[in-house]
Amino acid sequence: MLKTIGTKVWAIPGGHLPLRSSGEEPRDTSRDELCVLNAGHVDVHLRLTIYYEDREPVGPYPLQVAARRVRHVRFNDLIDPRALPLDTPYAALIVADHPVVVQFTRRDTSQAANTIATTLAYPA
Amino acid sequence: MLKTIGTKVWAIPGGHLPLRSSGEEPRDTSRDELCVLNAGHVDVHLRLTIYYEDREPVGPYPLQVAARRVRHVRFNDLIDPRALPLDTPYAALIVADHPVVVQFTRRDTSQAANTIATTLAYPA
Amino acid sequence: MLKTIGTKVWAIPGGHLPLRSSGEEPRDTSRDELCVLNAGHVDVHLRLTIYYEDREPVGPYPLQVAARRVRHVRFNDLIDPRALPLDTPYAALIVADHPVVVQFTRRDTSQAANTIATTLAYPA
Amino acid sequence: MLKTIGTKVWAIPGGHLPLRSSGEEPRDTSRDELCVLNAGHVDVHLRLTIYYEDREPVGPYPLQVAARRVRHVRFNDLIDPRALPLDTPYAALIVADHPVVVQFTRRDTSQAANTIATTLAYPA
Repeated sequence: MLKTIGTKVWAIPGGHLPLRSSGEEPRDTSRDELCVLNAGHVDVHLRLTIYYEDREPVGPYPLQVAARRVRHVRFNDLIDPRALPLDTPYAALIVADHPVVVQFTRRDTSQAANTIATTLAYPA
Repeated sequence: MLKTIGTKVWAIPGGHLPLRSSGEEPRDTSRDELCVLNAGHVDVHLRLTIYYEDREPVGPYPLQVAARRVRHVRFNDLIDPRALPLDTPYAALIVADHPVVVQFTRRDTSQAANTIATTLAYPA
Repeated sequence: MLKTIGTKVWAIPGGHLPLRSSGEEPRDTSRDELCVLNAGHVDVHLRLTIYYEDREPVGPYPLQVAARRVRHVRFNDLIDPRALPLDTPYAALIVADHPVVVQFTRRDTSQAANTIATTLAYPA
Repeated sequence: MLKTIGTKVWAIPGGHLPLRSSGEEPRDTSRDELCVLNAGHVDVHLRLTIYYEDREPVGPYPLQVAARRVRHVRFNDLIDPRALPLDTPYAALIVADHPVVVQFTRRDTSQAANTIATTLAYPA
């Protein structure tokens, strides 16, 4: 059997939710997404902290990923303790209680012709 | 001579096959692609497992990459044991019997103006 | 508590500022962006060096990121000691006095239909 | 002073030169690019090998990057020992005699609305 896959701390410096969207909501809403794979056999609890350029970090945002499941979470949908402002640079720090793997995906629908980007998060 | 290149376990948390495509099939079909380089001197057997948000993982999907060859495989074309549903978040875990290097590429043709994204998979 | 997140030296080989932009300035200007997360508890000083294909490197460009803050800096806005030329391949080397995490993002607005790309920088 | 930056062996599994381009040549030609930073104080010699799905690898393609320089090379421009075919999956293995950092960039101009993608190569 495989041992656990991934690591517990991940960072994403390049967050930014576009101001504008085109198309239908929520399918085509511009968004940043956090993609978390928990390939392990226990549920994982994550705590997100959001960093800004000119104010104190906000968090923790709690997240849970069940054993042997993936979750794709839009940063746009994080509302507790506080919704993320649009058109504002941010970074995310993810701390999990068991190893996971984290990928970052953006879909920008500012124009009718959508554009996408993706990268692994940084395993800290 | 070079020793073997890569590692045996790779993870891709951010899979998602768009519902819509434009243009000609299969050339322009929206797809996620798995790109596997086997720079070694023996054939490599891989086993993919696909993880979902709300159901049990599905797999293994068997794959083979001959010695000193690359393979680009569309996730859309994985059908045994079960085709991947469209418009559904998934993750992929790749386990090989010898070291390989894995890159993930997406082409989204939902609009006539295509968009692409790519990242290395996570070497676990 | 977490120990410091990241590392002190980062490299980005693939810099290139497009010649053309469309839309409104500066919102829609084509740009390469450096995204730096300082999750630590002390301010970080960075020194950027820009490498070219056919001339000596230029730098250092000084940058500061306060404790527990992120900064997104457009390479287009680096002017001291010298503004970066458009349509010219370059690389960036970032050296910090404390650990940070660095992501690279490009928005290309050469056409009205924008396109984006992102990757982590290389932790050296 | 910094010690050398990077490593000597890099892999890119996801190469693919689109069949079609739009716009002006060579500025807007669809291309894959290899971006190599040599931050060191000696010239670096690289040898590229190109891997295919159904034929023997081709190479070495020799490349040189002067000390303290970057080079962005289009795979489309590699012609000796043999030009790369269009619309054909390939991988690249880069072996250098001193450490470098390698990033992979694609610009696809199949449609008038261009799209871009980038990732670090895999440091083997």
